[in-house]
Amino acid sequence: MAPGLPNSVEIVEVGPREGFQFEGMGDPRRIALADKLRLIEALAHTGLRRIQVVSFVSPRAVPQMADAEAICAALKPPAGVAFTGIYLNDRGLERALAAPNITIVPELVLSASEAFARRNQRRDFAQEIAMQRTMAQIYADRGLVLDTANIMAAFGSNMEPEIPLATVLEKIAALVGIAAETGSAIRTVNLADTMGWANPALVRRTVRAVRDRWPELRIGLHLHDTRGLGIANVYAALEEGVDRFDTGLGGLGGCPFAGNKGAAGNVSTEEVLFLCRELGIATGVDIGALIACARLAEEIVGHPLPSKLITSSWERAA
Amino acid sequence: MAPGLPNSVEIVEVGPREGFQFEGMGDPRRIALADKLRLIEALAHTGLRRIQVVSFVSPRAVPQMADAEAICAALKPPAGVAFTGIYLNDRGLERALAAPNITIVPELVLSASEAFARRNQRRDFAQEIAMQRTMAQIYADRGLVLDTANIMAAFGSNMEPEIPLATVLEKIAALVGIAAETGSAIRTVNLADTMGWANPALVRRTVRAVRDRWPELRIGLHLHDTRGLGIANVYAALEEGVDRFDTGLGGLGGCPFAGNKGAAGNVSTEEVLFLCRELGIATGVDIGALIACARLAEEIVGHPLPSKLITSSWERAA
Repeated sequence: MAPGLPNSVEIVEVGPREGFQFEGMGDPRRIALADKLRLIEALAHTGLRRIQVVSFVSPRAVPQMADAEAICAALKPPAGVAFTGIYLNDRGLERALAAPNITIVPELVLSASEAFARRNQRRDFAQEIAMQRTMAQIYADRGLVLDTANIMAAFGSNMEPEIPLATVLEKIAALVGIAAETGSAIRTVNLADTMGWANPALVRRTVRAVRDRWPELRIGLHLHDTRGLGIANVYAALEEGVDRFDTGLGGLGGCPFAGNKGAAGNVSTEEVLFLCRELGIATGVDIGALIACARLAEEIVGHPLPSKLITSSWERAA
Repeated sequence: MAPGLPNSVEIVEVGPREGFQFEGMGDPRRIALADKLRLIEALAHTGLRRIQVVSFVSPRAVPQMADAEAICAALKPPAGVAFTGIYLNDRGLERALAAPNITIVPELVLSASEAFARRNQRRDFAQEIAMQRTMAQIYADRGLVLDTANIMAAFGSNMEPEIPLATVLEKIAALVGIAAETGSAIRTVNLADTMGWANPALVRRTVRAVRDRWPELRIGLHLHDTRGLGIANVYAALEEGVDRFDTGLGGLGGCPFAGNKGAAGNVSTEEVLFLCRELGIATGVDIGALIACARLAEEIVGHPLPSKLITSSWERAA
């Protein structure tokens, strides 16, 4: 039996980070710093409480994120809004810790696809584990309590025929174990469908298996709409009681190393907001303001974004 | 309790009719007859068993369907494949009956939104009922047994704040009654989300209410992806045991009189096929062949179509 729809849902906006990262491929200066800041500023006034704004990754691997520190320096987070960044190794974490205006939500990450980890993180599984230990120690040294275990490619991979559920559970268990080694504990597990292979039945099965084994963990989902099933996956997750989603305004985004031919952005923030609104689930986000941001994002990237709500009205006739 | 996923699903392809209709607005000759035929021909070899190819509507109201008879004359339906057309009045029905290569699936239609009927059918409710009686009599006179009751705008309207479920049931009851008057009976009720206001909870509620009252009727859905919830609505319907969907290849389509600003096409055939495949539901349609048709449709209309599977691979790594 599914636990049923949650009363409220937390939306984490990842469009600025994933979107700029993806859109800037090929020409890192295509999206101007001023435009990035303008969009982040607008998003910060929609009711969103957490916005992922930058990646602290090597500017050689991801040149379009070379302005990460410049973005952080220019940000002025309004009260109650956290700007966050992602990082894949200890050097990135140190940069995030040093960056102004960035809230650290201590997290570890493993990929359920080892082939993807070799491509995206450039590490094998043993190196991945070692890196997560190093990062857990950095958090512990700073007195930071761990929050999230991220599992990439939790629902499938472009590089392997299948990701067994047992593998996903193993990776979570590994991160739970590493947290315990430093006297900390994971509170949230965030399952990423990095390459867009999830389907609603697999989402239900995976969420149930994780919850059965770790009933104390909050479950979040990071979904991509690579094959058109994104919003159906969100709906199935909501019915399983999932109350935390990473989304991208306008359907922006996509991982440059995921091996997708299409754009393959995140599920669209405004479409998830609209779904929640229609189902009577609170989000605290002003859908009209968010759609205005998606239109701004479309203007900035200079091509149509996949979200249907950019052109269709979301308000009913009076 | 939902009855659970069906073992197999019937897909009715409506892209040629809805898509050409929508794409041809403004310039009726934009889509060449030869291109229409090329696409229908390709679709007829994908495993689809029913393809809606034309509208028999006034060429003054919908100039781009002025070649309906020319399309029908040129078609060569393969064995086991039915080409169908739609019509909104007795004149259209007479044209359909006279057209070569068109299979008549006797149907009646009412709009749950009377405001939409005035705009699309140019009739008020009393005129709508009278027209359905006339059409039921034409079928009876020809010895044709009724098959389908179509309800347009069954999930919401751009012209009214809400379509009460009771209104939807009233319209179905009216058509069931008209069928009985001519000694015939409705076998399928096809609920259309003409303006894309459905959400998964409303789909469940509506399907259950219709099934409770008419357990003998097969239920089909005709969904538009106007606000990004299309595939979530399909999934909810599948969980309610619905096993018949109208879909449009590539996400083509949209009603020219629905008052949508965006393209607002049908749910994409290949995305519904992919969802069914991932859920283990048979469709009898070759998804790769269908995607090839969607790419052809994209080439013909000359702009990107919304379907994600046109650019993303649907096959897993070996």
